[in-house]
Amino acid sequence: MFNTFGRILTLTTFGESHGKAIGGIVDGYPAGIALDMEMIESEMARRRPGSTKLGTARSEKDEVKILSGLYNGVTTGTPIAFMIENTSQISSHYSDIEHKMRPGHADYTFQAKYGIRDPRGGGRSSGRETAARVFGGALAKQLLSSFGVSIGAGVIEAAGIKATSYEWNPPFPPPLYAPDCPERESMINAIEKAKEECDSVGGIIECRASGVPVGIGDPVFGKLDALLAHAMLSIGAVKGVEFGSGFEAARKRGSENNDQMRMENGEVRFLSNNAGGILGGISNGNDIVLRAAIKPTPSIAREQLTITDTYEDTDICVHGRHDPSIVARAVVVVEAMAALTIADALLVRRCYER
Amino acid sequence: MFNTFGRILTLTTFGESHGKAIGGIVDGYPAGIALDMEMIESEMARRRPGSTKLGTARSEKDEVKILSGLYNGVTTGTPIAFMIENTSQISSHYSDIEHKMRPGHADYTFQAKYGIRDPRGGGRSSGRETAARVFGGALAKQLLSSFGVSIGAGVIEAAGIKATSYEWNPPFPPPLYAPDCPERESMINAIEKAKEECDSVGGIIECRASGVPVGIGDPVFGKLDALLAHAMLSIGAVKGVEFGSGFEAARKRGSENNDQMRMENGEVRFLSNNAGGILGGISNGNDIVLRAAIKPTPSIAREQLTITDTYEDTDICVHGRHDPSIVARAVVVVEAMAALTIADALLVRRCYER
Amino acid sequence: MFNTFGRILTLTTFGESHGKAIGGIVDGYPAGIALDMEMIESEMARRRPGSTKLGTARSEKDEVKILSGLYNGVTTGTPIAFMIENTSQISSHYSDIEHKMRPGHADYTFQAKYGIRDPRGGGRSSGRETAARVFGGALAKQLLSSFGVSIGAGVIEAAGIKATSYEWNPPFPPPLYAPDCPERESMINAIEKAKEECDSVGGIIECRASGVPVGIGDPVFGKLDALLAHAMLSIGAVKGVEFGSGFEAARKRGSENNDQMRMENGEVRFLSNNAGGILGGISNGNDIVLRAAIKPTPSIAREQLTITDTYEDTDICVHGRHDPSIVARAVVVVEAMAALTIADALLVRRCYER
Amino acid sequence: MFNTFGRILTLTTFGESHGKAIGGIVDGYPAGIALDMEMIESEMARRRPGSTKLGTARSEKDEVKILSGLYNGVTTGTPIAFMIENTSQISSHYSDIEHKMRPGHADYTFQAKYGIRDPRGGGRSSGRETAARVFGGALAKQLLSSFGVSIGAGVIEAAGIKATSYEWNPPFPPPLYAPDCPERESMINAIEKAKEECDSVGGIIECRASGVPVGIGDPVFGKLDALLAHAMLSIGAVKGVEFGSGFEAARKRGSENNDQMRMENGEVRFLSNNAGGILGGISNGNDIVLRAAIKPTPSIAREQLTITDTYEDTDICVHGRHDPSIVARAVVVVEAMAALTIADALLVRRCYER
Repeated sequence: MFNTFGRILTLTTFGESHGKAIGGIVDGYPAGIALDMEMIESEMARRRPGSTKLGTARSEKDEVKILSGLYNGVTTGTPIAFMIENTSQISSHYSDIEHKMRPGHADYTFQAKYGIRDPRGGGRSSGRETAARVFGGALAKQLLSSFGVSIGAGVIEAAGIKATSYEWNPPFPPPLYAPDCPERESMINAIEKAKEECDSVGGIIECRASGVPVGIGDPVFGKLDALLAHAMLSIGAVKGVEFGSGFEAARKRGSENNDQMRMENGEVRFLSNNAGGILGGISNGNDIVLRAAIKPTPSIAREQLTITDTYEDTDICVHGRHDPSIVARAVVVVEAMAALTIADALLVRRCYER
Repeated sequence: MFNTFGRILTLTTFGESHGKAIGGIVDGYPAGIALDMEMIESEMARRRPGSTKLGTARSEKDEVKILSGLYNGVTTGTPIAFMIENTSQISSHYSDIEHKMRPGHADYTFQAKYGIRDPRGGGRSSGRETAARVFGGALAKQLLSSFGVSIGAGVIEAAGIKATSYEWNPPFPPPLYAPDCPERESMINAIEKAKEECDSVGGIIECRASGVPVGIGDPVFGKLDALLAHAMLSIGAVKGVEFGSGFEAARKRGSENNDQMRMENGEVRFLSNNAGGILGGISNGNDIVLRAAIKPTPSIAREQLTITDTYEDTDICVHGRHDPSIVARAVVVVEAMAALTIADALLVRRCYER
Repeated sequence: MFNTFGRILTLTTFGESHGKAIGGIVDGYPAGIALDMEMIESEMARRRPGSTKLGTARSEKDEVKILSGLYNGVTTGTPIAFMIENTSQISSHYSDIEHKMRPGHADYTFQAKYGIRDPRGGGRSSGRETAARVFGGALAKQLLSSFGVSIGAGVIEAAGIKATSYEWNPPFPPPLYAPDCPERESMINAIEKAKEECDSVGGIIECRASGVPVGIGDPVFGKLDALLAHAMLSIGAVKGVEFGSGFEAARKRGSENNDQMRMENGEVRFLSNNAGGILGGISNGNDIVLRAAIKPTPSIAREQLTITDTYEDTDICVHGRHDPSIVARAVVVVEAMAALTIADALLVRRCYER
Repeated sequence: MFNTFGRILTLTTFGESHGKAIGGIVDGYPAGIALDMEMIESEMARRRPGSTKLGTARSEKDEVKILSGLYNGVTTGTPIAFMIENTSQISSHYSDIEHKMRPGHADYTFQAKYGIRDPRGGGRSSGRETAARVFGGALAKQLLSSFGVSIGAGVIEAAGIKATSYEWNPPFPPPLYAPDCPERESMINAIEKAKEECDSVGGIIECRASGVPVGIGDPVFGKLDALLAHAMLSIGAVKGVEFGSGFEAARKRGSENNDQMRMENGEVRFLSNNAGGILGGISNGNDIVLRAAIKPTPSIAREQLTITDTYEDTDICVHGRHDPSIVARAVVVVEAMAALTIADALLVRRCYER
């Protein structure tokens, strides 16, 4: 219930940033798929700290060990467990602030909820947990690929600078994982500037799924957009999500926002995609389009007011190797959660195929 | 899986807009609560069509019959089933367009998914289904009330006009269910104007939950904001959701967006609420604040291009008694879904109370 | 969680024996199935009180109203809600014993759990709740039938008298719903004798599912026999369940109990069926065979020692119209739960069909 | 869905007998419990192969590594992942029979279901998977212990020899883990004799939970006995389960089988425990009593008829280090599953405590 995502295809994750290992179990994955290990490796690399100049200076190896569910490299239909040992963690970075609640982090809420917390690096609420999602997402993508579905995401806004015109041809290159647009360089510079100023910035990630057949997702509480919204907001730094015309839909008239339809060569064609590929919770054959808002990294090397874990006022300055923005590294995490959600919905759909 | 929401406290809904009845089952509701029937009645009235000049001219009675789970007016811990008979539906309004796919509606996706659909009034994907949610929400609110939690929502933007300054003192009055603000009258006029022009408009609803204790929600996939996002996007017309500073967080620096903390009279106080009351998926004691974007009503009495259910091009003009904007009537639905989500999370939390 | 059974195909039930109605919601049922209403009616009749001389003298009409999920008699893929109004209940029968805990019933545990209970006729724990299961089972059987699966059950032991030799050709006839065997008449007489003596008896029901394809059910916690065991023990009067050679397997040697295999006309044939059609939790193509032990009806018109709801010693004699044995009426309930379980597992299996 | 057990407190397991590791994730476990590692170690030892003369000659070390969820030895409320590396497996034992379907095993059903299987030692359906359950059960027992609940099981029948008179004072000693009874030595001899004769035997395990408060479990589909039945039948070798008087209830009269009640020193006392501690699915404060039937080990060193994985007739003789009976080693597994089920139900109950 708490650490499991999905209904038929599920990912359960475990691990704290400075514990022995993080990892998870992918269950409900079909048998008979020869996993592409290089693809998994390359997906893990996209999220790995230290992989780009925009990120933290931490260099984690993030080597994934698969413990079960494979026989001669082929999935057997049984649970695929995997782990990534924590090797590069330097807990001493946290000894200064062990007893302080970092603003914008879950320190206070964990302490209040559980009466205990692992103070090293955020423990369970560390972004490091998302490495397990990227592994799960890589498997989901391989499954989706066999159904002709592809998922791509990119940064379309960072530090308040929006990409104005771009083509959508993912995957997009590091360090920003943004589409080629006039503003890309400025975004990168703004992130670096924030770092110099001991501050951080956020951004917006767009994610699109292409090739999703009509009929995925269910009316009412199993709406595909509801499941994707759950998926996105389960990522720690995400503070909002929208589909298709999204919040702008609220400002449009029905005559503008409705996607009209025509037949074209025997296929249904929508004249626009304000719906973001989902009508009444069910995919309509268009690209599924969503955007997730990423907040600025809360760990900053500046004085901030806070309290201790014995509930006294104090100040805090979070040193350590933190990303000035996690928007770039979150791209592959957004893709992973979208892939897991859509793959699950696609399997559920198969129960009812006529 | 498909028509059930929640984990411990669940709402399962049923019914098509022009079938015999709509309704549902609330399960996991605590025993021993004397239900306030007038409150339920008054919640239902807030959603009911024809209740305000802004809405449709349809006048539905929406009389709820409770079928089980009560003994002498007190809940017994067993499932509370309820139904609302469909009495005022005029299916002939739909005979013209029975074979046409209404743009912006789920007609095409239902037909493609199921190979069959109830063409009368949207069938299962009709907004009428939300009446069952309002009933469930009313029960959730009564439960929350016993824990000191209250939920209120209001329209803060309609037809592109934003409320600029207002106090938050819900419930807000009909017809718009918006807080008292300089723009309220303009919003109402803009909705009426859209109606005159055979068009429709959308808007944004803010919802706040007060009195939520610290520690509700879970890290990772059970994050309270993830559950709320799922809840919101399960409402047909919602195209986006954000928490606290939301999409604006993406444009702020960490130093601005972090909510700093101080002790005040032995209580933890946050100096701001950019987090929207949730840190790491767990409530922090602040008001939970979210906003949902409502798209313009897709049913409009204008010519639009579409296709038939035998996949040929056609035009459509959706007559009938439709709301020019559903933003006002959606306020109580947003509250209901927030209440169900938070009440469920609160019950889950109790398992672990020390 | 509490009143819902199944994973993809679910049945949620509601209702107390003397409330307004009982009923439920079947969710996840495929679209496009023209329901056979006569078959539903005839299934309901098999469970209905007063239908045979062995049962209670109560005559309930048990008319089912379908409230949703059908369009022109064909399922639409949306939830199928149904209700049976309680019309023949005579609550006055319970006024004598309203404050007494009936031995063998859930009166005491309900009172202790909820602090409140509906004392009329057992309330939620009444056998009347199983009418909703019979309806759900009828739908499941119709679905299974389209996959070539049939379910049949019969009484093979009553009042301690075992059927010795019989052919398995269900459905079996009332009043006992037992296969034609030398002991059938004695069983019926023994039940009638118990009634005359103001006592009650139990029995054993065997249930077989034929035509279940190989590969249904999952290893580990989703084993088909585990799901069926859950299903059977969810029926109030069932105190045990066994599969294939069952408890006798514990007394056999491996060399006797293993089902050896041979190819026959290109098909796998097992030389015996001690496994009851399930190996490692997965159907093996043989008939699935289970037996459920039904306890004697706890309501008897004899003095028994008990306590009041204010926790004082008292005596009780449960008058009213009770079955001297519910084993006959439980036959269709056992079938219904088996059908729901297997239909659900079959749909889940389809997700992974190659 | 497939490899997860429980609702609030869940155990998800992974691993094949001859893969890299087996293990699992315990989720929903309360924070703040200092785990007793010695107790876990000693529970693991009870199941470990080679630990008694009755079992297999395989000697597995079964060292458990906890990967997450602990901070300074105390649970933090986050998922507790654990693994046991497979070190002593000798896959060559299986090369002879790699392409043969072992009778009584899941070889054929796995092959038919997945189109692929790990032929080494049963793969996922190996009894080795239960080591993960024993770990989960050890944690559940520690949690239950803090609520005053204790779980004990023992062999009460083996090779057709029933224990006649015994006291219930678990834990019972190896090698048979049976209560002290006149027949214990004969049971042990019968198992050894079966081994000499290249055959195997089964048995019956009784399990009792003491100290379970009144009110655990839910009416209808969440009945505590239904959940326990699911738990028991999820153990590979279990072919039947019964509660209280169980199958014998079917042969009793209501007047014998009902547990009458009296007040005694202000406490409710049942004059018998035919119900096995559960009435209407809810615990009644008595000991919960269940019995599980264990089939004889299917792996026997005798010629048996079977087929190959290319569907041709063949013979098989399963050499290797197999238990002549797994009834002794299954005792701790039965306890573990009972503990997980009751601990979960107890946490669920807490949501509603008044």
